[in-house]
Amino acid sequence: MPKIYVLVDLCMVPLGTATPSVSDFVAIVENKIRQSPLKSTLHSAGTTIEGPWDEVMTLIGELHEYAHEQGYARIHTEMRLGTRTDKHQTAADKVNTLESKIVKLNENK
Amino acid sequence: MPKIYVLVDLCMVPLGTATPSVSDFVAIVENKIRQSPLKSTLHSAGTTIEGPWDEVMTLIGELHEYAHEQGYARIHTEMRLGTRTDKHQTAADKVNTLESKIVKLNENK
Amino acid sequence: MPKIYVLVDLCMVPLGTATPSVSDFVAIVENKIRQSPLKSTLHSAGTTIEGPWDEVMTLIGELHEYAHEQGYARIHTEMRLGTRTDKHQTAADKVNTLESKIVKLNENK
Amino acid sequence: MPKIYVLVDLCMVPLGTATPSVSDFVAIVENKIRQSPLKSTLHSAGTTIEGPWDEVMTLIGELHEYAHEQGYARIHTEMRLGTRTDKHQTAADKVNTLESKIVKLNENK
Repeated sequence: MPKIYVLVDLCMVPLGTATPSVSDFVAIVENKIRQSPLKSTLHSAGTTIEGPWDEVMTLIGELHEYAHEQGYARIHTEMRLGTRTDKHQTAADKVNTLESKIVKLNENK
Repeated sequence: MPKIYVLVDLCMVPLGTATPSVSDFVAIVENKIRQSPLKSTLHSAGTTIEGPWDEVMTLIGELHEYAHEQGYARIHTEMRLGTRTDKHQTAADKVNTLESKIVKLNENK
Repeated sequence: MPKIYVLVDLCMVPLGTATPSVSDFVAIVENKIRQSPLKSTLHSAGTTIEGPWDEVMTLIGELHEYAHEQGYARIHTEMRLGTRTDKHQTAADKVNTLESKIVKLNENK
Repeated sequence: MPKIYVLVDLCMVPLGTATPSVSDFVAIVENKIRQSPLKSTLHSAGTTIEGPWDEVMTLIGELHEYAHEQGYARIHTEMRLGTRTDKHQTAADKVNTLESKIVKLNENK
């Protein structure tokens, strides 16, 4: 299983639940993510998880299995992810770089 | 053009740029988003924008046109979005609800 | 509203339905898409729609409104999309180009 | 590593390439996918791959590593995926079910 470092932005939703609210589902999944040793950041449309490919993909597969065990019959997931060999970059690095560049864009006006 | 309230999590990347770094691109796009009247929140894998469908989709189309004008020949975008009629919910509401539920999950142990 | 030509790969799912099966929902949405003048192609994970930005995004907003009118309280959608200024390309062009290149890759072995 | 059956719709693009055309990249990746024993279906916005979680995620990680070895410094990927415990369903099953339901929708008019 590949071990390349990956940043994955994960959005998991259950299908076929009694109500349109999915926050109970997302809370138990997010809680599981926080119990893992991998670094993660929650935002309103998902959670970014970072680490070696095998550990991240094992965790996400385990989240699916865990949710099914909790009675969720179907899970629909969307991931946005990136790998790169030119440099190492964390999720926090990406936001910091952007905020600095936006400050400079507005100074130059 | 529909006016239903929508939360869109947007991730735009340029293809065919000289370097693998895309932060210059993301900075000018994010700066444009912040100049719009729509509420938005940046995170490491995208930006969540919320508002009426027509305004949000017009803004995102304008971001594509603006980026092309700046010399980016091809743009690849991914959106995760939701609409609902059962209640009104902002991006901040979603995160607050989740964090409260996660606290309760861990109190009950 | 921008009119740039866009290819959108659309995946819409309803949340909070009685069963995990979502094919009734997808069927009525797909049927609506086919009634529009825009060109579209169904596949197992979504439908690709192509045309001017304003027409495509109006159609997709109308699909959300239509699904809500049919009683679906919450809709979760994911779009992958691209715009480019270097050349015009349809969804069919993309697949044809790829298949030709794959044939050549295997001839050269 | 989890072994639950998963359908993944995969879209991989390289960042920082000399031209906006990415078909050379997609062709070598698609060719690798076809050399694997996993079932896959190409469409204009991605490729759907189906099989056990560990095999599918190992393959996709290997595709990233392979593309980096070919000189692509950064890869941006998007996956839409689903798992379910209520029934087994292939990608082809999903399309067949939909087409039958759409035919019925139009007969009933």
